[in-house]
Amino acid sequence: MQETESNAACPGADRGTLDAVRIVLVNPIYGGNVGSVCRAMMNMGLAKLVLVAPRQLDMNELRMMSCSGYPIYENRTEVASLDEAIADCGMVVGTTARLGLYRSHSSTARQAAPGILQAAAERPVAILFGREDNGLSNEDLSRCTALIQIPTSETLSSLNLAQAVLLCCYELFLATDSFAPSEERSDDAPANMRDRMFDIWRETMLEIGFMQDDKADHMMMGLRRIFSRGRLTVDDVKILMGVARQAQWAARNQNKQPVETE
Amino acid sequence: MQETESNAACPGADRGTLDAVRIVLVNPIYGGNVGSVCRAMMNMGLAKLVLVAPRQLDMNELRMMSCSGYPIYENRTEVASLDEAIADCGMVVGTTARLGLYRSHSSTARQAAPGILQAAAERPVAILFGREDNGLSNEDLSRCTALIQIPTSETLSSLNLAQAVLLCCYELFLATDSFAPSEERSDDAPANMRDRMFDIWRETMLEIGFMQDDKADHMMMGLRRIFSRGRLTVDDVKILMGVARQAQWAARNQNKQPVETE
Repeated sequence: MQETESNAACPGADRGTLDAVRIVLVNPIYGGNVGSVCRAMMNMGLAKLVLVAPRQLDMNELRMMSCSGYPIYENRTEVASLDEAIADCGMVVGTTARLGLYRSHSSTARQAAPGILQAAAERPVAILFGREDNGLSNEDLSRCTALIQIPTSETLSSLNLAQAVLLCCYELFLATDSFAPSEERSDDAPANMRDRMFDIWRETMLEIGFMQDDKADHMMMGLRRIFSRGRLTVDDVKILMGVARQAQWAARNQNKQPVETE
Repeated sequence: MQETESNAACPGADRGTLDAVRIVLVNPIYGGNVGSVCRAMMNMGLAKLVLVAPRQLDMNELRMMSCSGYPIYENRTEVASLDEAIADCGMVVGTTARLGLYRSHSSTARQAAPGILQAAAERPVAILFGREDNGLSNEDLSRCTALIQIPTSETLSSLNLAQAVLLCCYELFLATDSFAPSEERSDDAPANMRDRMFDIWRETMLEIGFMQDDKADHMMMGLRRIFSRGRLTVDDVKILMGVARQAQWAARNQNKQPVETE
């Protein structure tokens, strides 16, 4: 077993509260799982990994599964006992799939995430994950100040270790509210622009013989309904105007070359 | 490549809307990932897996990583093209980590989940995941009616395939609202029971000399504060009453055998 310093200081809250949350794997067995944990942690912005008395880990598997998350493994802490891993932690969170004695007090990862971040702003927080085959022992659980249960189907409640870590880290990352999904880069088209587009379409639909004048209002209602189901951006409206103008052009100039579209 | 029937019917909504959501892996490469996907799907109550032109998958890895989720693989559908995989689907959801042209219209898995379930109640929904090294191509994305982006840290946005599937399935499973975390099995103690407990503690603390009469109110406020930070169940209060009674007994009967606690 490769040993590293057992008492690396926990980074202060100024490096972000996620830095004060450590993932503690108790007696992990498989290198592939530990590697996947590293990648998942880096995906979700966590950095501090502690291994408690790990088995001889398959380093090929570990390296392969960690991918770009390998630095998390390189910066890990390895300790001989759980008590060493959590000595300076305030909140100590156990994770469990099973229910039963000592396990009934749990909340979900989503429910627990804001409280964990709040606690991590003051003092390091440890989140414990048990070994692949048995999970956390009752002795491990006795060290915990809170329990997390990860929602799963009753058909198969046993999560892979790295998957369990991912879901907890994902909930913490989302609870930091630091992620904004990509925005539509073109603004919603204003109503007067949309109306200009529908005017051009009306003119075109009449000109190409798609509808007669007495049915025009009715057909345009149908087209408005189709084009109003989702957002229409300025770019979208320009494309739709171009389509109509081109159809007008083609109707007037059947056998000539198409013009350049704007 | 092992082929199975390419047009297995999608289960109706009466088997639960999750049954109408199919996970489509486009050109997956690694058996271990496909196995992990199976386990993750079963963890989250999804059953329908479609593989589009998979590579020769390592079946040992696949079997090992799928664990109890192997039946999902056995019941998979394999097809030669994406169009076959989604032919009968209404909503087709692409998943992407990258942003850019054709990818800017995305929402997060959490935002999208309720709409996906709503659509799945009417017609099968496909959620597409690209191959491990490249993700979905622009041609794949052109088939999609919606895009999901999974929140990740900017440091490492590339998720493992099975991890990406897990997060999407997890959000769908939670959106079904079918999971209830385990409940505390003992009810909250009512106020009059808590007060009876504090009365016994007060009596005991005085009797064992922990506090003097003139400081009793002040000390009891401190003890009330400690015991009121979290929930106190009926069972908890019984334990705390027992502790105080036993301390009284011990103070009166120093050198005798302890009584049976109730």
